[in-house]
Amino acid sequence: MQVLKLGGSVITLKDEPMTADHEIIRRLCEEIRLAWPMPLIMVHGGGSFGHPVAEKYGIAKGFTSERQIPGFARTHQAMVALNTIIVDTLLEIGVPALSVAPSSFIITRDARIESVDLEVVGRLVVRGILPVLYGDSVLDRTTGFSILSGDQLAVWLAVETCASRLIFGVDVDGVYTSNPKIVPEARLIEQLSLEKLDGYVKIGKSLTTDVTGGMLGKIDEARATVEAGVEVQIVNAKRPDVILKALRGEPVKGTILIR
Amino acid sequence: MQVLKLGGSVITLKDEPMTADHEIIRRLCEEIRLAWPMPLIMVHGGGSFGHPVAEKYGIAKGFTSERQIPGFARTHQAMVALNTIIVDTLLEIGVPALSVAPSSFIITRDARIESVDLEVVGRLVVRGILPVLYGDSVLDRTTGFSILSGDQLAVWLAVETCASRLIFGVDVDGVYTSNPKIVPEARLIEQLSLEKLDGYVKIGKSLTTDVTGGMLGKIDEARATVEAGVEVQIVNAKRPDVILKALRGEPVKGTILIR
Repeated sequence: MQVLKLGGSVITLKDEPMTADHEIIRRLCEEIRLAWPMPLIMVHGGGSFGHPVAEKYGIAKGFTSERQIPGFARTHQAMVALNTIIVDTLLEIGVPALSVAPSSFIITRDARIESVDLEVVGRLVVRGILPVLYGDSVLDRTTGFSILSGDQLAVWLAVETCASRLIFGVDVDGVYTSNPKIVPEARLIEQLSLEKLDGYVKIGKSLTTDVTGGMLGKIDEARATVEAGVEVQIVNAKRPDVILKALRGEPVKGTILIR
Repeated sequence: MQVLKLGGSVITLKDEPMTADHEIIRRLCEEIRLAWPMPLIMVHGGGSFGHPVAEKYGIAKGFTSERQIPGFARTHQAMVALNTIIVDTLLEIGVPALSVAPSSFIITRDARIESVDLEVVGRLVVRGILPVLYGDSVLDRTTGFSILSGDQLAVWLAVETCASRLIFGVDVDGVYTSNPKIVPEARLIEQLSLEKLDGYVKIGKSLTTDVTGGMLGKIDEARATVEAGVEVQIVNAKRPDVILKALRGEPVKGTILIR
């Protein structure tokens, strides 16, 4: 079993609200089709769909005012719109994918997943169907509601299903010694141990503005996966064939998190 | 707590695949808004969205061939498309509605709901949000997958939440002594007891072709609700203000099922 997380900044146009990058989505779906069939769970982020709405209404802060309630619902609807584009593309090219709505079955506590019934997701995989989940606005037992990031969800699914590998498809080649988008001499860290992690998190931060945190949040989330013995790979999903190779277990440029 | 089920034949154009009746949907959403806020769960049927796909792939028969798997996923996607139209309309006019995907948390056994965690739906209602569910293609513990009809789901929700009333909004005025669409002297049955039910089910059958059964299926499903002490009303959602009045508990033309 593998878990593939595709970042919102990969599949949407960051600066244009509610705009998917249809070309990249189609290519990534083709890469999944080429690797198919395999036991796989897919999770995607929100990018320019979920984040602007969630931010506008302060959903990540939890319930503070009735005014937020439409925003809670609209965040989910925005994510459904993006998810529909991805699932429809997968179905069109022949990958049997089923949309699974996190807010329909996951309730967090203090913005963290507690325990969730994984029977639907598990049965889909066994049946040869690709469950496609996403970062979502969800109910929260203490704060009313929260944002469940695609990263937290992917990590949780990888740990709970004892996945062999968790692949983060992002818009950079991995974790760098400095921000590669602004520092030319930034060097890619090919293997990052949990011990070295703390020294790097500051400099490895992604440029992306993101209500759920960028690369830093991703690595911090991934800690639990690495500790559970799951291989975690951070690769550039924007480069052709990288996701295909990663799914097939072939060597690709990127960062591997190790214990 | 009330449960409102809107029939697929009310909100879609029966003879045009994947075509919603936007005008009726908007009017019905306005009626809900006028009655809002109230503890309410909404369920809608599939009409020309879910049914043609489900029928084409024989989803209701359960898993018999790999060929059905894309159909299973496509049935759900078709329902998401219809649900999105309804939820977006509700949000637009100011009813805080959240789409809740049945296939994401319900698994049937022999096409019947066994037990389901209702925490999400319950918390949404308490939070003042309208959960909007729908008939869906779902996984099944014995047959692989099945069609969970909106009727079965609405009845189950009404019983489990101890609702005071379950309103079926259909495209006729209620249950008739004969089919009103073809027999002019057909008479509306205003009160239908469970004892009298068996004698009427044959003649009360709706004209609608429907993989989940028409009026007959509805009344048969509703039996459990009536037995649980929930008032069941079958009314014509196509007539203006009928749903509004029914939600407010005002008298409307229709059939009431009684013990």
